[in-house]
Amino acid sequence: MAKDKIRRPRAETPKGFRDYFGAEVTERNEMLATIAEVYRAHGFDPLETSAVETVEALGKFLPDVDRPNEGVFAWLDEGGDWLALRYDMTAPLARVAAQFRNDLPSPYRRYTMGSVWRNEKPGPGRFRQFYQCDADTVGAASVAADAEICGMLSDTLEAVGIPRGDYLVRVNNRKVLNGVMEVAGVLDPTDPQKFAEARGTVLRAIDKFDKFGEAGVRALMGAGRMDASGDFTKGAGLSDEQADIVMGFMSAKRANGTATAARLRELVSGSVLGAEGVDELEQIAGLLDGQGYGPDRIVIDPSVVRGLGYYTGPVFEAELTFEILDEKGRPRQFGSVAGGGRYDDLVKRFTGQEVPATGVSIGVDRLLSALRAKGRISGAAQGPVVVTVMDRDRMGDYLAMAAELRRAGIRAEVYLGNPKNFGNQLKYADKRESPVAVIQGSDEAARGVVQIKDLVLGAQIAAEATVEEWKSQPAQFEASRGEMVEKVKAILARNQARGAL
Amino acid sequence: MAKDKIRRPRAETPKGFRDYFGAEVTERNEMLATIAEVYRAHGFDPLETSAVETVEALGKFLPDVDRPNEGVFAWLDEGGDWLALRYDMTAPLARVAAQFRNDLPSPYRRYTMGSVWRNEKPGPGRFRQFYQCDADTVGAASVAADAEICGMLSDTLEAVGIPRGDYLVRVNNRKVLNGVMEVAGVLDPTDPQKFAEARGTVLRAIDKFDKFGEAGVRALMGAGRMDASGDFTKGAGLSDEQADIVMGFMSAKRANGTATAARLRELVSGSVLGAEGVDELEQIAGLLDGQGYGPDRIVIDPSVVRGLGYYTGPVFEAELTFEILDEKGRPRQFGSVAGGGRYDDLVKRFTGQEVPATGVSIGVDRLLSALRAKGRISGAAQGPVVVTVMDRDRMGDYLAMAAELRRAGIRAEVYLGNPKNFGNQLKYADKRESPVAVIQGSDEAARGVVQIKDLVLGAQIAAEATVEEWKSQPAQFEASRGEMVEKVKAILARNQARGAL
Repeated sequence: MAKDKIRRPRAETPKGFRDYFGAEVTERNEMLATIAEVYRAHGFDPLETSAVETVEALGKFLPDVDRPNEGVFAWLDEGGDWLALRYDMTAPLARVAAQFRNDLPSPYRRYTMGSVWRNEKPGPGRFRQFYQCDADTVGAASVAADAEICGMLSDTLEAVGIPRGDYLVRVNNRKVLNGVMEVAGVLDPTDPQKFAEARGTVLRAIDKFDKFGEAGVRALMGAGRMDASGDFTKGAGLSDEQADIVMGFMSAKRANGTATAARLRELVSGSVLGAEGVDELEQIAGLLDGQGYGPDRIVIDPSVVRGLGYYTGPVFEAELTFEILDEKGRPRQFGSVAGGGRYDDLVKRFTGQEVPATGVSIGVDRLLSALRAKGRISGAAQGPVVVTVMDRDRMGDYLAMAAELRRAGIRAEVYLGNPKNFGNQLKYADKRESPVAVIQGSDEAARGVVQIKDLVLGAQIAAEATVEEWKSQPAQFEASRGEMVEKVKAILARNQARGAL
Repeated sequence: MAKDKIRRPRAETPKGFRDYFGAEVTERNEMLATIAEVYRAHGFDPLETSAVETVEALGKFLPDVDRPNEGVFAWLDEGGDWLALRYDMTAPLARVAAQFRNDLPSPYRRYTMGSVWRNEKPGPGRFRQFYQCDADTVGAASVAADAEICGMLSDTLEAVGIPRGDYLVRVNNRKVLNGVMEVAGVLDPTDPQKFAEARGTVLRAIDKFDKFGEAGVRALMGAGRMDASGDFTKGAGLSDEQADIVMGFMSAKRANGTATAARLRELVSGSVLGAEGVDELEQIAGLLDGQGYGPDRIVIDPSVVRGLGYYTGPVFEAELTFEILDEKGRPRQFGSVAGGGRYDDLVKRFTGQEVPATGVSIGVDRLLSALRAKGRISGAAQGPVVVTVMDRDRMGDYLAMAAELRRAGIRAEVYLGNPKNFGNQLKYADKRESPVAVIQGSDEAARGVVQIKDLVLGAQIAAEATVEEWKSQPAQFEASRGEMVEKVKAILARNQARGAL
C-alpha cells in the first residue's frame, strides 16, 4: 500500500469551547448539588431535556434580534428537520410543558442544570458552551410564584456561601415599564404590535446602562449611537421628551419599597397596565416581607429590565454587591449572577393557549468564580496518596497497600508509569498534589516496614529549613507495614486540621 | 400588519431523543455520584471535555466502518472547521491527552460522565443521545493499569448495589486473538495492514455471537450472511479450516484461569504476539487474585472481543448474570453493562508518539435499569408536603407554613394554581405524590389550628376501608398551628419506617 504523507489532526478544543479539569468539575458539581437541594426543598422537580431540539421548537428568542436566524448551532437532520443545540433552558421547558401537558402536574415546578450552546463570536472569558441552572414554575398566574422564585434565589445564594449583605435580589415589573412606555407614547394598548421594534430597542438600551452610561442609553433611545470603533447602532427614534419619561423610570428607586412603589405609581399615571404592574410589585414585596426577606435581601428596583424580549411581568436579577479586583487590579462590582422573570406567552407558541410561567436562571460559571473570589471554595485538588514502585515484580504488594488505604477511606493509587527513575515518581506525586508517598524497597519488604514520606511537611521544610534540618529529613520516617494506614491517617488529619485554621 | 395564518411549531423531542423527569434524574445522579466516589478513591480525577469537537479530532472510530463518515452530528462552523458532537468519551480524551501533554501528570488517570451523541437510526430503547461514564489511564504501559481498571469496575458494581454473584467481569486480550488470527493465516506480523479488513469483519462477527449464534458467526467469517429480511452482509472470506481455528479460540474457556491460559497457549502456539497476550492475561489474573478479586468476580474469558477496532491488548466486559423478564415475560440474561480495553494508538494520531492507554466505559442507562430490575432503586418520587390555599388573601400565611416545614428539613410547597376549586388542589397533591396536605380555612385560622391530611393513609383507607370507617376519616385530623411541623414530621417518619420494611 502506498504510504500517503501523514497529516495529523490538530489536538485542539474548537474555538470558544473549553475543558474542565479536576477541582473545576467537583466544585461545580458540589455547588449544583447544594442548589438542587434548595430547589427540591421548595417542591421543584428535576428535568433533563435533550440537548438537541428542532429549530422550530426552539424559536427565535435570543436577545440579539439583529440576527434572528443565527446564534445557534444547527444542522439538517437526515429526516428532513433542522435540529439545533439548545441555547437556553427556557425554550426546551416551553416545549416540554406543551408536549407533556396532560401528564405534568399543574402548576409544574421544575429545575434543570446543564450545558447550553451559543453560536456566537468567542472572546476572552466568553465561551460557546456554558452551564445554566434554572428553576421555573409553569401554570401559576399568581405573583406568589414570582415571590417564591425570588425568595428561593435568596436562599440559594446563602446556601452556596454568599453571605447576606453580599448580594441583593432586585425586582421590577415589565408592566410598569410598559406603562411608562404608554405614558411616553411608544405603546398603544389597543395595538400591541405598534412601536414594538422601538420598544425592543429601548429595552436593550436600558439593559446596557451599566455598560454605556446615561449618555449612551439616551443616544440609543434617540437617533442612535456610534461606538469607539465607529460602528453605528440605530436608535429607537424617541424624542427627548419621550426619553426623559423613560429615563425617569430608571431613577425611580427610593429609600424603601413603599416609596419606590409610590413614585412608580406617579410615573405610570393613566396607564391601566402600569398600575397593574405596580400592584403586582407591591404584592410581591408584601409576600416577601412577610417571610422575612427584607430589603437587605430583596428590593424593588426600577433599573432592572432584563434584555430578553419575552418577559411579560415581574423581572428579577441577583447581583453580588462586593467588589473584586479586575484584571488590571482595579476594584469593581462583581455584578449579576442570576436573572429571570415572568413569560406568559412561550408555551402559547405551541398550543395556542396562554400558560403563565415564571423562572430564574443562575449563571453557574459566574457564581463559581464569585465563590472563588470570596475564598469559599479553594480551587485546590485533594491529591491521592501515591504508593511508589521500587520493585517491579512486587506490583501485587503495592496494589494491596493502595487497596488497604482505600478501605480506610483514604484516596490512594499506585504509580503506574515506568518505575525505573524514582525521582520521576516523586515528581509525579508532586504534580498530583499528593499529601503522602509510601515507599517500600526489597530491603524494607524483608524487614516488614515501609517508608512514609510526608510531602506537605517536606515541601515546607524545603522552603524554610536549614541544611542541617533538611539532612535530618523528619518528613520521612519508617513504620511497620501493619502501622502504615494509621500513620498515613495521622498525617492527613494533621493537614486537615491545619487547613481548617 | 397583515396577519399570516399561524403555523404552530410541533411540541416534540426530535426523533431518537428523550427527556428525563424527576426520579429518573435524581437516581442517575446518585448512581453517578457513587461511581465517582469509587473512581476518586482510586486516584482518578474528573475531566469534563466540551461536547463539541472538530471532526478531524474525533476521527473515525465508530464501530460501523461501513459508514466511516457518518454516525456523528456534524456541521460546518463559520470559521471553516467541521464541528461535531462527541460520539464517545475516548476520542475527546485522546485529544486532551495530546493537547495538554505538558501539563497533565503521567500516567493520567481520569474519569468523566456525560452525554454522547450518535447520528444513528433511532429504534425502541435506542436513543441518539445517551450517558456514558468512563475511567481511563493514559500513559501506563503496565498491565497493572488494566488490572486496576478491572478491579475498580468490580468495586463500582458492588458500590452501586449489584451484589457479588450477580455480575462477572470477563477479561480477554486482543493479542491472543491476533495470535490466533496469525495461526489461522489472516495476520502477517511483518505487514500489519494485510488482511486488516478481513480481521475487522471477523471481530465484529465474533462480537455478535450472542445475537447471531455460531452458524451466523461462521457465515460472517466465510462468504457472508443473509438476514431474515434478505439483507446480505459480506463475510471475511475465511476458509472452513481458518474459521475452525478462530472458533476454537471462542470456546477456549476452561474451569479456571490457569487452565484457560494453558489452552490459549496451545491455540497461539508459534505466534510471538499470541504468547505475549497469554502472558499478559496471566499477569492480570495474578494481580487480581492477589487482591482478592477471585473468579467469582473477574474471570478470563476468550469469548470477549469487543467490537471496536482500536483495542490493542487486554479487553474487558462486565456482565450482569441474573435473569430478568423481557417484554414478552420470558426470562433472559441481563447482559453487558460496561466494557473497555487497552488502546495504545489513539493519542499517536495527534502527536506521532505512541501513548499507552486503557479504560472502561459504563453504560449508565443499562446499569440504572438493572438496578431498577433488582429493586435497588425504586423509581418513585418523594413528593413534597402541599400547603393548600383556602383563602387567596392569606397567601402570606401559607407561604410561611411551607417555609417553616422546610426549615424543619421537610420538602414543602404552596399550591400556586387557581385555588378556587379545592378538589383540584387535592388532585394536584395526588399527582405530586405528596405524603401530606395542610389545610387552613379562615375558620381554622381564627381558631389557630390547621387540618392535616395524611394522603398515604387516606389512599390506603380508600382502598381497604368500609364506608363506616371511611366516614370517620382518621386520615385527617386537626392540630394547633404550633404543632403543625411536629405532626407532619410524625407522619413522614411513620411512612419512612413502613417503606423500610
